[in-house]
Amino acid sequence: MELESAFEGYATPSDESYKTRGEHAEVALRSDPVVWCSAQVKPLSQAELCAYEETGFCIVRGLVPLQQIEACKNHLQTFTNEDQLKVTDNCRFVTEANSTVLRSIFAIHEDKSPLGELARAKFLTEYVQQILDDDIYVHQSRVNLQAPFKGTGFSWHSDFETWHAEDGMPRPRSLSAVVFLDQNAEYNGALMVIPGSHKSFLRCPGRQKGANWEKSLQSQVYGTPAEEHLRQLAESNGIKYCTGAPGDVLFFDSNLLHASSGNRSPFPRRNLFVAFNAWSNRLQAPFFSEEQRPEHVAHRQRVERFPRSA
Amino acid sequence: MELESAFEGYATPSDESYKTRGEHAEVALRSDPVVWCSAQVKPLSQAELCAYEETGFCIVRGLVPLQQIEACKNHLQTFTNEDQLKVTDNCRFVTEANSTVLRSIFAIHEDKSPLGELARAKFLTEYVQQILDDDIYVHQSRVNLQAPFKGTGFSWHSDFETWHAEDGMPRPRSLSAVVFLDQNAEYNGALMVIPGSHKSFLRCPGRQKGANWEKSLQSQVYGTPAEEHLRQLAESNGIKYCTGAPGDVLFFDSNLLHASSGNRSPFPRRNLFVAFNAWSNRLQAPFFSEEQRPEHVAHRQRVERFPRSA
Repeated sequence: MELESAFEGYATPSDESYKTRGEHAEVALRSDPVVWCSAQVKPLSQAELCAYEETGFCIVRGLVPLQQIEACKNHLQTFTNEDQLKVTDNCRFVTEANSTVLRSIFAIHEDKSPLGELARAKFLTEYVQQILDDDIYVHQSRVNLQAPFKGTGFSWHSDFETWHAEDGMPRPRSLSAVVFLDQNAEYNGALMVIPGSHKSFLRCPGRQKGANWEKSLQSQVYGTPAEEHLRQLAESNGIKYCTGAPGDVLFFDSNLLHASSGNRSPFPRRNLFVAFNAWSNRLQAPFFSEEQRPEHVAHRQRVERFPRSA
Repeated sequence: MELESAFEGYATPSDESYKTRGEHAEVALRSDPVVWCSAQVKPLSQAELCAYEETGFCIVRGLVPLQQIEACKNHLQTFTNEDQLKVTDNCRFVTEANSTVLRSIFAIHEDKSPLGELARAKFLTEYVQQILDDDIYVHQSRVNLQAPFKGTGFSWHSDFETWHAEDGMPRPRSLSAVVFLDQNAEYNGALMVIPGSHKSFLRCPGRQKGANWEKSLQSQVYGTPAEEHLRQLAESNGIKYCTGAPGDVLFFDSNLLHASSGNRSPFPRRNLFVAFNAWSNRLQAPFFSEEQRPEHVAHRQRVERFPRSA
C-alpha cells in the first residue's frame, strides 16, 4: 500500500522527528531548537528571545519607515489590474479559488522594486540571522493580498510541515518575517496563531499523487493537521491574533500553527511574507512528496546568501 | 425595463424611505425612530436606551442562566446528525453551500424544547417590548451554528432591507435578540457590526426573478449593499465585534449592518437568533419581490402575540 510505505526511504534527519503525510495524523515533539543563538542581545534582547522561544513569534513595532511602506503599496497597484496578470500554470500570480481576484504574488524579493528591496533589507535580515544563528537566504517570498470583501484566508498549517514534505527542508531552522503593509485587524484577516504550537510537530495524514502545490496555494488539502489535534492545542494554548499597524513586522517560527479568516471587511490586508532558511539547512529532495515544487515557490538555484557577519 | 419600473406600485410606507432593489445602490436616511418608547427605565436604563439609539445595539451580560444554555446545547445535539436531517426544499434546515454541514435551523421558537422556551422567555421579550413600545411577535427565529473549521459566515447586510423587500415588513420597528450559546470570539465568527449604520438605509441594487430566499440563506446575492457604501460607513464609524460569553444577549436594530467571518477555529459558535417585530408593523405583501418567503422564514399565520403589559 502506498500510504503504509510512505515513510520508506526517509533518510535525513536521521531521528525521523518530522515524518509526515503517512496514514495517520500524530502529534510529535519538535526535536530542534527554536532560537539557535546564545547570549545575543542585538537586535532582540534576551527577554525578547526567550519570549520568541516560548511563543514562537514576536512583533517588532514600527520597524519599517512608513515612506517605504507607501512606496511598496504604490508598487503593488501595478499588479492589481487583473486583466493583465495572465495567471497561467507555473506562474508567480495566484488567484482566489474560482475567482480572478489576486491572492498572492510569489518571488517578490527578486523584483527590482520597493518590495524587492524591503524583502532583502538588512534591518529585517539581522533579526533572522540572530534567531537562526547562521547565514541565511530567502526560501520563499510573497505578498498575500486578502482583498476587501473577497480574501478567503488560509486554513491552519505549519509552514515547515509543507517545506519539509514537499520542498525537502531538513529541519525547522527557518522563519518568516511578515511586514504589515496595511493595518492588520481581526476583521480583515490578521494572522491567527496558536502560541507555543511550534514545539509540537503535527504529522499530517494523506499524501497526494503528483503535484499538489498549485491547488494548495489556493486552498490547502494535504499538509493540514487533524482537527482534533488543532482543537487540543487551541484549548490548552489559546488562539492569538497578530494585529498591528503598517510598518510593524511579525517574525514567526516556521513550525508555528497559523491561519487567517477571510477578509469580509472593506479594508485590504496586504502583507509581505519573506521566509528565510538557514544556509546550513538548504533544501534536499522532498522528504514526503513525489514532485518538488517549482523555483518561485521554493528557491534552490536562485539563492542569495546573506552572511551572518555582514 | 424591469429595473426602471421596480419602484412602481410602491404604496406603503408612503414616504418611500425604504425603496430598494432598484437599478442603483443609494444611501438614504432612516425616517423612523430606533427607540420607540419614551421615559422608560426598565429593563434598560435611559442611558442604555440612549446608547442603543446611537449605536444600534446593546449587549446584556449574563441574562440567561447557564443551566438553561446547557439544556439548549444538549438539545441541539439532536439536530446535528447530518444524515438524519433530510435537507429538502422548503425545509427549516439550511446547510452550508456545497456541503452537508448544518448552518441554520429555522422556526426554532415553535419547538417544545429548551430552545423554543428560551426564544419566548419573558426576560427576553420585555427588553424588546420596551425598545419597540408595542406588543410584539416573532418574525423569524433560528439557530446559526457556525460549525468549527466549516462555518462560512454571513456577508454584510441589513436584516430590515430583506424583511422589507421580500417579506413586506413596512418599517424598521423590529430587532433581533441574539442569545450566545457558546463563547463568541473574533476567531469563531462573532458578529461584526458597523455602529450607527442603522441610521442610514442602504438601498441595494438588483432584483431577482422568482424565489431568492433559499440560496440567500446560504450565501446572499441580492440585498447586499454596494461595497463603496459599506466602505464609507466602516471608515467613518468603524467595525466592532459583539463578543461575549454563553448567556450574554445581544439586542440589535433590524437595520444595523452586520456580518460575520467564517469560523476557522476549532470551537463552535452557536447562537439563537429571535427576530421580533412590533404587532402594529405586521407583514404586508413583499414591497420589492415577486414572491414572498415561506412561513418558517417569515411568520404571517403562525404568530403568537406577546402583549406589552403582560
